[in-house]
Amino acid sequence: MSYQNGDECDMNPINLEDASDDVKAVFEDIMATRNVPDVNNFWKYLANEPRMLAHVWSSLKDMMGPGALDPLTKELIYVAISVSNDCDYCMASHTASARAKGANDEMLNELYAVVGLANMTNRLVNAYKVPVDDAFK
Amino acid sequence: MSYQNGDECDMNPINLEDASDDVKAVFEDIMATRNVPDVNNFWKYLANEPRMLAHVWSSLKDMMGPGALDPLTKELIYVAISVSNDCDYCMASHTASARAKGANDEMLNELYAVVGLANMTNRLVNAYKVPVDDAFK
Amino acid sequence: MSYQNGDECDMNPINLEDASDDVKAVFEDIMATRNVPDVNNFWKYLANEPRMLAHVWSSLKDMMGPGALDPLTKELIYVAISVSNDCDYCMASHTASARAKGANDEMLNELYAVVGLANMTNRLVNAYKVPVDDAFK
Amino acid sequence: MSYQNGDECDMNPINLEDASDDVKAVFEDIMATRNVPDVNNFWKYLANEPRMLAHVWSSLKDMMGPGALDPLTKELIYVAISVSNDCDYCMASHTASARAKGANDEMLNELYAVVGLANMTNRLVNAYKVPVDDAFK
Amino acid sequence: MSYQNGDECDMNPINLEDASDDVKAVFEDIMATRNVPDVNNFWKYLANEPRMLAHVWSSLKDMMGPGALDPLTKELIYVAISVSNDCDYCMASHTASARAKGANDEMLNELYAVVGLANMTNRLVNAYKVPVDDAFK
Amino acid sequence: MSYQNGDECDMNPINLEDASDDVKAVFEDIMATRNVPDVNNFWKYLANEPRMLAHVWSSLKDMMGPGALDPLTKELIYVAISVSNDCDYCMASHTASARAKGANDEMLNELYAVVGLANMTNRLVNAYKVPVDDAFK
Repeated sequence: MSYQNGDECDMNPINLEDASDDVKAVFEDIMATRNVPDVNNFWKYLANEPRMLAHVWSSLKDMMGPGALDPLTKELIYVAISVSNDCDYCMASHTASARAKGANDEMLNELYAVVGLANMTNRLVNAYKVPVDDAFK
Repeated sequence: MSYQNGDECDMNPINLEDASDDVKAVFEDIMATRNVPDVNNFWKYLANEPRMLAHVWSSLKDMMGPGALDPLTKELIYVAISVSNDCDYCMASHTASARAKGANDEMLNELYAVVGLANMTNRLVNAYKVPVDDAFK
Repeated sequence: MSYQNGDECDMNPINLEDASDDVKAVFEDIMATRNVPDVNNFWKYLANEPRMLAHVWSSLKDMMGPGALDPLTKELIYVAISVSNDCDYCMASHTASARAKGANDEMLNELYAVVGLANMTNRLVNAYKVPVDDAFK
Repeated sequence: MSYQNGDECDMNPINLEDASDDVKAVFEDIMATRNVPDVNNFWKYLANEPRMLAHVWSSLKDMMGPGALDPLTKELIYVAISVSNDCDYCMASHTASARAKGANDEMLNELYAVVGLANMTNRLVNAYKVPVDDAFK
Repeated sequence: MSYQNGDECDMNPINLEDASDDVKAVFEDIMATRNVPDVNNFWKYLANEPRMLAHVWSSLKDMMGPGALDPLTKELIYVAISVSNDCDYCMASHTASARAKGANDEMLNELYAVVGLANMTNRLVNAYKVPVDDAFK
Repeated sequence: MSYQNGDECDMNPINLEDASDDVKAVFEDIMATRNVPDVNNFWKYLANEPRMLAHVWSSLKDMMGPGALDPLTKELIYVAISVSNDCDYCMASHTASARAKGANDEMLNELYAVVGLANMTNRLVNAYKVPVDDAFK
């Protein structure tokens, strides 16, 4: 089901110049952290709930940077879940991030294959109710 | 909802010694490729449909090995989808594969975090129907 | 994936003036119950299967009115499930109903937050396979 | 996540002898229609909400019998959705119904294959955002 | 969330005349098997990953033809899963295939009813955690 | 698919006495906020990823308390999503919270009905691709 832009949601995006102080503080941290001149639409819409804006940004800032997994791997996992859930915005934004961190077409094509295969074998396991092998316990 | 082992499914696993020739050929390719003395339960149950057994093995053998993405990254993506879909068997088997390829607790904990976060922001995008930024097109 | 209106589905909506007697009876009950001059598109499409039209209307009429939960709470739960499943039509229609029953932006923003958080923690529970505390049993 | 029987849900099943008159009427219609001496657990639990008990039974009685699709085909579709959603109880009960109407192992194995394949190609379509061919419109 | 055709995905479709030899071989087998002058968009996009193109085609060719279940039943199951997952492309293409094999509006309307009912009762079973009847084991 | 307690996950719960300082600080805030002598299993497992432990607790503490929606309504929405996703632990813990805030059997039974109905009509909307009424825009 699709909407035209403009009538999509009865919540409007909140731009930096119209933001309350607490929203502005989050926006500015996003822009500084990512070194970009504006925040993406996701943050402008989420700013309708300033508490969630702060929590989601804080969580992503903390978990998506360097860690036990490198940032590219984490972006690829994010894309994979978004493909599995069919979230177009999330695919677009996290694919862009993944490409910025080094992903190319060949890598994305393999990722799509794995997402498809996992969704298939997950259902085959459901169907046959395969008991876990002792070796995996 | 849970079943006790033994009454889980009215399909029974097929063991190597009882397998038809075409099933046996797949089992032997799995054992040779993975250098293991037996195949996991997944393959023994899937052997009830020998055509799918062959197709699924052929697809996984081809796509999950070295390629544009390294095998560990692909196992991690497989685990991520299986967590998102709550497929316990798939989590157990692909986590075991991921660990065999180098994954440790810290990496899995970050992976779980990304799966959780992506499932959250996917729904926030649904709720606000966030239009895709021009920069992502 | 989106379609343009008009070619969306090979099933056409059925309008009041073209409806069979059994469909017309349901349409008239909807209009009388809701005090509206026409039924929404959902009912016009569902009229392609008159038995389901009758069952769905009968179920919603019975369950979504006053009861142990007030009608607004039930509309909010309906919106929550529709956001989680990304059903745009259902979000649009049940958000409109919720607003008619008193929901405002602040309430919807909190609802979206809860839907996001629940989808996140549901997956974290999957990942860690958290056993149920004795206190919850 | 699994529970032991008995502590699974804080709602208890309602048996025929303890049922209110409206619940008893539905139970008796189920037993008469299916020619069975008792109703399945699903109905005994759903009887906690007598209105839904009546609506769900009425809908299933009406839609799952002979029609444009034969009853076996409809049971197979029911099993397919239940496999896709991993609903063990639903798989058990509708597989039993499908077998009673003529399904055998070979048919169920093909059904499982189709459920797996559809879940795979659905995600590949998500990933590539394949536009609908003019020929399908 | 919807995209306009043309900017939907950063992967482009691959047409027969631009295809590598291995992709061309799959395309030609599809055209010959189905007796059509060109392949659908799904295959043109999937051709970005030639290994998956070959695996998916091989699996579908093998499993969707005559077998224990007739091809129409299997197309209906494919449509059912695609409706449940809201995959518009898959619904369009497999509904077209089902119609070509004999499905009509009445059959599709009943199928939609079953998909809806199964999704409802699957969740009622989740809610009440209905234990499996001994009769189903 | 079920595991026995003890072999469920290769991550172990972290108890208060074994917790690092940052985990202990979160645990103590949970216990103080909720006035309970220990934290639930969810937090003990999530403590394997102390950053997520802090983010999830901080988000839930902030969003699930009094606000535009009352805490009971938010617990009911949480239960609804958990039923829809079949997350048993989440159902158990948030149903307990909802009951502590005033939910009774009649309210939960209606909630389950709404979750079932919404999952049904969401799929009927998918099937018919119902266009949004102008009145909802």
